[in-house]
Amino acid sequence: MTRGITFELLATDGAARRGRVTTGHGVVETPIFMPVGTRASVKALAPDDLVAAGAQIVLANTYHLLLRPGPQVIRELGGLHTFMAWDRPILTDSGGFQVFSLAKIRTISETGVEFRSPVDGTLHALTPERSIEIQQALGADIIHPLDECLAHPATHDATEQSLARTLRWARRSRAAHAAAGGSAALFGIVQGGAWEDLRARAADETVALGFDGYAIGGMAVGEPKPLMYELTALVAERLPADQPRYLMGVGKPEDLVEAVSRGVDMFDCVLPTRNARNGQCFTPDGPVVIKHARYARDGRPLQEDCDCYACRRFSRAYLRHLFVTQELLAFRLLSLHNVHFFLGLMADLRQAIAERRLGAFKTRFFERICVLSADASLDSESRTEA
Amino acid sequence: MTRGITFELLATDGAARRGRVTTGHGVVETPIFMPVGTRASVKALAPDDLVAAGAQIVLANTYHLLLRPGPQVIRELGGLHTFMAWDRPILTDSGGFQVFSLAKIRTISETGVEFRSPVDGTLHALTPERSIEIQQALGADIIHPLDECLAHPATHDATEQSLARTLRWARRSRAAHAAAGGSAALFGIVQGGAWEDLRARAADETVALGFDGYAIGGMAVGEPKPLMYELTALVAERLPADQPRYLMGVGKPEDLVEAVSRGVDMFDCVLPTRNARNGQCFTPDGPVVIKHARYARDGRPLQEDCDCYACRRFSRAYLRHLFVTQELLAFRLLSLHNVHFFLGLMADLRQAIAERRLGAFKTRFFERICVLSADASLDSESRTEA
Repeated sequence: MTRGITFELLATDGAARRGRVTTGHGVVETPIFMPVGTRASVKALAPDDLVAAGAQIVLANTYHLLLRPGPQVIRELGGLHTFMAWDRPILTDSGGFQVFSLAKIRTISETGVEFRSPVDGTLHALTPERSIEIQQALGADIIHPLDECLAHPATHDATEQSLARTLRWARRSRAAHAAAGGSAALFGIVQGGAWEDLRARAADETVALGFDGYAIGGMAVGEPKPLMYELTALVAERLPADQPRYLMGVGKPEDLVEAVSRGVDMFDCVLPTRNARNGQCFTPDGPVVIKHARYARDGRPLQEDCDCYACRRFSRAYLRHLFVTQELLAFRLLSLHNVHFFLGLMADLRQAIAERRLGAFKTRFFERICVLSADASLDSESRTEA
Repeated sequence: MTRGITFELLATDGAARRGRVTTGHGVVETPIFMPVGTRASVKALAPDDLVAAGAQIVLANTYHLLLRPGPQVIRELGGLHTFMAWDRPILTDSGGFQVFSLAKIRTISETGVEFRSPVDGTLHALTPERSIEIQQALGADIIHPLDECLAHPATHDATEQSLARTLRWARRSRAAHAAAGGSAALFGIVQGGAWEDLRARAADETVALGFDGYAIGGMAVGEPKPLMYELTALVAERLPADQPRYLMGVGKPEDLVEAVSRGVDMFDCVLPTRNARNGQCFTPDGPVVIKHARYARDGRPLQEDCDCYACRRFSRAYLRHLFVTQELLAFRLLSLHNVHFFLGLMADLRQAIAERRLGAFKTRFFERICVLSADASLDSESRTEA
C-alpha cells in the first residue's frame, strides 16, 4: 500500500506523545485537534480564519459530501482542497458513523448499508469499496474504512459480531484502496464497544491487517467517562508506537487532556463550533455563556489572555449583544474563539510533552477549570454538525 | 453650532461632485456608499471585512440600538466606535424611519412618537430632543433630526402638513443639539413626498434653518424611478454646494449612478447585505443568483475581475454549495462580495468625476448591466435590515 503520510515520534512524557505527521499537503504537529468541516466548511469560519486560529488539518464528512454536492462534482472541481480553498491536510471519515446515526437506513448487510438521502430521498449504497472510492474522489490526505457503528449500550455478543464485520469491512477497504492505487493514507478503525476484551482484540486484529495509522472509534457514545479513558489507554498501548493514533469524535477540553496523556495524537469534535453557535465559549477558567445578563455591560474581552480576533477586538458586552440579537457575526466570532482555544490547548499540550512536564500542566489545567469555572456546564460533545 | 465635519469640493462633472468629508474619525471620499450596521453590526461582516472591502463610513440605526442594547449601555462602554470596534466615521439616523415603518405606534403627536418595543413590549417615547440625546450617547460623527416619514402615496395636503411638522421638529432638533454642545455634525432632512413644489419648499426651508449637511429623505418608498431621479435633482440643485448631500436608503447600483450624476454625495442601503443573504450577488454584468443549478460545476469566481476574498479564493460552485446547504460562511462571503462591489462602484464613480468622464462611464455601465444581465432581477431596495 502506498503510504501517504509519515509519522515521527519527537518526544514522550509517560504515555503521551509529541509527534509530527507529514502529508502531501504539509506537516501536522501532534497532538492536534482537527476542526470539523462537515460539508467542506468549518461552520461560520473561512480558511483564513482557520489559519489564524492555528488549524493544521481539518476533517470533512464523507456522508454529508456524498449527499451534497456529491463526490463527482468535487472531483471535477479539482478535489476537496481546491473546492474548499484549504491547502493544508484534510482527513475524511468513511461516512459510516453518520449513516448509522443520521440516515434512514434501508438495509444493513454484509455487503454494506443502503440508505435514503434525507435531502432528496434518493437511494444510496455505501459499501467498504464505495466509501474508499468516494474518499479517493474527494482527495483527502487521510481516509478511513467503512465501519459498523453500534449504539451504546450493546451486549457482548452483539458487539463481537459487529466487530467481526468491521474487521471484514476493514480488509475489503484496504484491498480496494490498494487496488485503486490510492495515494491517501488509510487509517484502521478500532471498534469493540465498551468491552475490554473486544477492544483489545479489535486493536490487535486491526493492527495485524496493517494500516497507516489507527483511529479509535465508537467512543463518547454514552459510556461513562472513566470507562472511555480506560478503554482509550487499553487500545492506545496496543497500537504501534511509530504510527499516529486518532480518537474519533472526542471531545471536551478535559477529554483531550486525558486522552493525550494516554497516548492519543489526533482528535476531532464539533464542540467548539457547535457550542459557539449556542453562545457557549471555552476559556481556561471554564465556560462563558455569553447571553447571561452579567455580561451586558462587561467591557472585558471574552478571555483576557487570548489573542484571537474576537478577544483582541471586542468586549463581552458587544459579543453578548451580537448573540442576543442573533447577528451572524456572533457565530463567526465565538466559533473563532472556541477553535482558537482548542488549538491553543493542543499547542500547550505539545509543549508540555516536549518539556516533559505534562503532569504539572494537567494539575494546573484541572485546577483552573474546576475551581474557577463560573458558568453553566457545556453541552456534551457530539461528532456531527448536521 | 459646532460643526463636526468639513466638506471640500474637489471636482465636478456636470452636476456630479467629487468631494471629501473630514470627520473626527477620519476622512470620507465622496461620492460614497455607507454599509448599514443596523444593530452596530453590518450583517455577517466584521470590521476587518469592511476595511478590506474599502468601507470608509458605516451607518447604524438609532431605533434598533435604542431597543437593544440601549444607548446607556453603549455610552458606558465608550460609545458606538468602541462598542463595535469601528474606528472610522459612523452616521446614525434619527430612528424616525424605523419607528414609522416597523414599530407598533401608540401615538403620534406634535411632541413626538410613542411606540412599544417589538422586543419586550416596553413603551418608548421618541421626540426630536430624545433622538438627539440618544444619538449623542451613541457618539456617531453625523447625526439626524427626527422626521415624520409618510407612507407613499400621500395627498398634497397630508404631505404639506407632514413637511411642516418635520420642519418644526428639525428646528427643535437643532436647538437640542446646540444646547447640549453636541460635537457631531447634524444633517437636515429634506422631505416633501412625491410633490415637486413641496420638495422645493422643503429644501429651501431646511437650508434656511442651517445644518452641517443635507439628507434627502422619503425617497425609494414606492414612487416611480423617473420621479425619484427628478425629485433628487430638484432638491440637490437647491442645496448648498459646499456641504455634503445624502440620499437616504438608496439603492440599487443604477440608482447610485443616476443620483451621483444628479449631485448626491452619500448613500446607504441594506441591498448588498440583504441580497447576499438571499443568494443574490451583484456584478458589473448584472446579478448572479448563486443557487441556480447552472453554477453547480462552475469553477469560475463569482466575478472574474473582482479582488474581494470571495472571488479571489472560491468558485461559484463552492459558493453555491455553501448557499444551498445554508452554511453560515455563505452569508459572509456573499456579503463581502456585494459590499465590495458597491464600494468599488463608488470608487469608479469618484475617479470618473475627477477625470470628467462620467458620461462615458455611465454609458458603459448601463450597457454592461442591461445587455449582459444574465440572471433574475434583484429584490427592490429597502433601508432596514430588520
